Amino acid sequence: MSLSQAYVIGVDYGSDSVRSVLVDAQNGNEVASAVFYYPRWKEGRYCNAAANQFRQHPLDYIEGLEDTIKRCLLQAGSAIAANVKAISVDTTGSTPVAVDATGTPLAMLPQFAENPNAMFVLWKDHTATGEAAEINAHAEKFDTNYLQYVGGIYSSEWFWAKLLRILRADETVRAAIHSWVEHCDWIPFLLTGGKKATEIKRGVCSAGHKGLWAAEWGGLPPDDFFATLDPLLKGFTEKLYTEVYTSDTAVGTISAEWAQRLGLPADVQIGAGAFDCHMGAVGGQIEPYYLSKVMGTSTCDILVAPEAEVGDKLIRGICGQVPGSVIPGMLGMEAGQSAFGDAYAWLRDVLAWPLQHVLSQSSIIDADTAKKLVEEAVDKLIPELSKQADLLEPEEGSELAIDWINGRRTPDADQLLKGAFTGLNMGTDAPRMFRALVEATCFGAKAIVDRFIAEGVPVKGLIALGGVAKKSPFVMQMMADVIGMPIRVHKSEQTCALGAAMFAATTAGLYPNVEAAMQAMGQGFDAEYTPNPARVDVYEKRYKKYIKTGAFLEAQTKKPVAQNQLTEA
Amino acid sequence: MSLSQAYVIGVDYGSDSVRSVLVDAQNGNEVASAVFYYPRWKEGRYCNAAANQFRQHPLDYIEGLEDTIKRCLLQAGSAIAANVKAISVDTTGSTPVAVDATGTPLAMLPQFAENPNAMFVLWKDHTATGEAAEINAHAEKFDTNYLQYVGGIYSSEWFWAKLLRILRADETVRAAIHSWVEHCDWIPFLLTGGKKATEIKRGVCSAGHKGLWAAEWGGLPPDDFFATLDPLLKGFTEKLYTEVYTSDTAVGTISAEWAQRLGLPADVQIGAGAFDCHMGAVGGQIEPYYLSKVMGTSTCDILVAPEAEVGDKLIRGICGQVPGSVIPGMLGMEAGQSAFGDAYAWLRDVLAWPLQHVLSQSSIIDADTAKKLVEEAVDKLIPELSKQADLLEPEEGSELAIDWINGRRTPDADQLLKGAFTGLNMGTDAPRMFRALVEATCFGAKAIVDRFIAEGVPVKGLIALGGVAKKSPFVMQMMADVIGMPIRVHKSEQTCALGAAMFAATTAGLYPNVEAAMQAMGQGFDAEYTPNPARVDVYEKRYKKYIKTGAFLEAQTKKPVAQNQLTEA
Repeated sequence: MSLSQAYVIGVDYGSDSVRSVLVDAQNGNEVASAVFYYPRWKEGRYCNAAANQFRQHPLDYIEGLEDTIKRCLLQAGSAIAANVKAISVDTTGSTPVAVDATGTPLAMLPQFAENPNAMFVLWKDHTATGEAAEINAHAEKFDTNYLQYVGGIYSSEWFWAKLLRILRADETVRAAIHSWVEHCDWIPFLLTGGKKATEIKRGVCSAGHKGLWAAEWGGLPPDDFFATLDPLLKGFTEKLYTEVYTSDTAVGTISAEWAQRLGLPADVQIGAGAFDCHMGAVGGQIEPYYLSKVMGTSTCDILVAPEAEVGDKLIRGICGQVPGSVIPGMLGMEAGQSAFGDAYAWLRDVLAWPLQHVLSQSSIIDADTAKKLVEEAVDKLIPELSKQADLLEPEEGSELAIDWINGRRTPDADQLLKGAFTGLNMGTDAPRMFRALVEATCFGAKAIVDRFIAEGVPVKGLIALGGVAKKSPFVMQMMADVIGMPIRVHKSEQTCALGAAMFAATTAGLYPNVEAAMQAMGQGFDAEYTPNPARVDVYEKRYKKYIKTGAFLEAQTKKPVAQNQLTEA
Repeated sequence: MSLSQAYVIGVDYGSDSVRSVLVDAQNGNEVASAVFYYPRWKEGRYCNAAANQFRQHPLDYIEGLEDTIKRCLLQAGSAIAANVKAISVDTTGSTPVAVDATGTPLAMLPQFAENPNAMFVLWKDHTATGEAAEINAHAEKFDTNYLQYVGGIYSSEWFWAKLLRILRADETVRAAIHSWVEHCDWIPFLLTGGKKATEIKRGVCSAGHKGLWAAEWGGLPPDDFFATLDPLLKGFTEKLYTEVYTSDTAVGTISAEWAQRLGLPADVQIGAGAFDCHMGAVGGQIEPYYLSKVMGTSTCDILVAPEAEVGDKLIRGICGQVPGSVIPGMLGMEAGQSAFGDAYAWLRDVLAWPLQHVLSQSSIIDADTAKKLVEEAVDKLIPELSKQADLLEPEEGSELAIDWINGRRTPDADQLLKGAFTGLNMGTDAPRMFRALVEATCFGAKAIVDRFIAEGVPVKGLIALGGVAKKSPFVMQMMADVIGMPIRVHKSEQTCALGAAMFAATTAGLYPNVEAAMQAMGQGFDAEYTPNPARVDVYEKRYKKYIKTGAFLEAQTKKPVAQNQLTEA
């Protein structure tokens, strides 16, 4: 197939919105792009932050798919639309949903339309912490260590813990469920017009990183593993899968219905889906032994190394190690931080409480002005805090934070851990707390880098992608200072979607492999942050305090203190 | 002297304002009262919160004295003004100032008018943490334990640490200083028209609790103690005092100048001054073995016990034990929390940052409306947070705070300690943080009660006084639940000023002793909070976490961690 006049679409589902990009397959140039914010999610429906329940309605995804692709095609014009060759999709994950026998998410059925348990369970939903703990304890009983490729600890953010939680929590869903599908596998199934849940093709990325799939045990762990965990899971593996697909493979051709609905040719190829950061790492031109960090709501960190070099090395406490999950032929290693931008947004929301709950009730101004004022102030808050925090010089005893506001993903997943601030004093103000929190997210990033190195996997440098990387020089400079390594920021505003487009181009046969697509379509880097030597020493001391404080909090979380161990302060 | 038609004035200097009450000496009924907010202080002049420097200009005190007494007399009318018999004064403390040979605070001299080191060093100023540590280390070298009556640990909030700090920090003050005087001793000196620094009469309260004065060593510690600490202090005790006065004693008669200036009779008696919580405890009708808590910016806790019963018992870690410091014949024991209302105000200010620094810049509304809006919202913030926090049910794992935002006064003074929050998660909002902070201040109060009991001094119940006690049922109920003891809230809005008035009445000879004045002039109690048994258990568990977390932070503050003790989280 000729590269000239060939176009591909990459679709990237994030936590709050979906964006599609239509790119020229020859050079990766962006022809059109569109973003769609999930309307039900934006209203906070189906969520309960206090209980860490975060669900997303399939209609938010479907409407966003249609809206963004149609807007891209409208921008690009019909000549280009006629030359679209393939679509690939990435999504957050693990974000699975219960589907019926036809592969339809239960929430699409009228009787489940408002039931959060019939919706996608978003990656950051932590309702399954109990189930994750049970899986971890259960796995110890088996000769085969089924958790070895997920870092030895199963997380409440993942596929099986969430399935078990939903089965236990909701009798109606339990009665109707026929399979359990990751968001990144369901969208390609939808686009290809699949009609049977048993025929959903699963990507190796979600399967290997979250589903406990491994070539070593010939697919998923045996049914016995799950049936003895809870009889509710008995027979479930049969409803799932044995085969998995790398992202350079097409799972099928677009269905006639979707081709017509979107205005695309009938022969558009649909690639196997993967998680956002995995495709993002490709969009961001990952190199072996460089840590690619997609920095958004959370971070997803990817490191790839040739399978021939690393062999079957296992990295303790890193949440996924899957051959081919990012690039075929390389071991894909995934780590990440549960809250990154989300931590900043959390503090913003704490600080915005007086605006939203006190000022908004004032009788001095009308409701409409109040609303505008509050919105404007909330929007400006993180930029203003960053500006003020950037003027502060950290000292050894300055305010210190622990970034586990949404638990800890890596190293050593533990969603029960929580965040903290210490060193608070009468001089502590909002910018100082913000500075400490940003620093804590950088310390969290350093803990991941240190773990790779401690386990014998060198880290040569960092590649930063995603919203925070592009928007916040303050965060990026601190990251370079704290880790003591240079960080390159990728030029593309949409590395995940661009990575999906590179996979789409490979899927369509426009390139022999994804490395070739990456080479041709990559957009390069537009910023590099280098460590400030004057700050290395103070951050080193503060990092030790962070580690020590974290270890104390972790010990407290795990072992309730016996009466006789207490001493009065 | 006849009680009928006899009036007395109590003057209470707080952290932000001074209030005077004019009361009927026969029954304690308030005839008039007036409050004056320190104008220079309100503007934040001479302070540096980030450095914990808090200074107050003598003019703020003098203007407030004149203004409030004159307004009281105006309200009361000239017939009553002519029958005022005495004035007694209480102040915050230790809040000392450098004076010249005439007893004039240096900041009253033109060349020192804007020099913070020539002003009163407010109780909560922590610039002398280094000096306090030196005093503590130094005291260990002597056979006599000069710190035994201040709980074994000298605080940066106190007289000698602050003097040494100022002498070291400011050459010009060092050259001009002739003596060092507590606020509560200086106001009576001013009112009696004293002309020589050497003639300032010192109250036993400030002398014994902060100045290291004790009958056992015949006054202040010997000059050698101070000269060997730092030669700058050599000879300083000679400029100070040996004699001290209980608060039922007059230090003199009002000067002609002040009688005229205020419009008072020439024979008005001026009582020996004392610290606010000591007079407040009397105004609040303290009883032996009841802990009287003045709950304002900080708390000052007073417990009295007959000297005959407690003898020379020493209470570890409680900051003052002085015979007669509250009531002659009783041992006055002082404890307290460095930040109480101040902790709430600190969180309010953190949360108000977006209002004051972001919303206030909005172009949607004019500057005047913005100012009004922000002021209104800030004023409503603590009441609104209290309302929302009161709806929350604490659980074992809920957000936990450590209340040492301004260091820890008791038990075991340590101003280097800092506050903290743990257990923060995506569901944590401003009311949850506020609830945790209020709870932490209650835990801090419980730690004091527990220490008295552990040291063999029974605590029969609590008497609550001051702004927070009157204004916040939310705080008071939590205090009762956390400590597990009933709390009576005193009826008087102005217990400190009323206590000062009781001492004034005694000073004027209207009563044979202060107990009689307390009996006749006491206003009784208007609320009682009893512990909610349903919450005792959860608070007990959370208190253990508070103690353990505090112990960790304390260990971290004191002992920097050696490299090899670190383990990765």
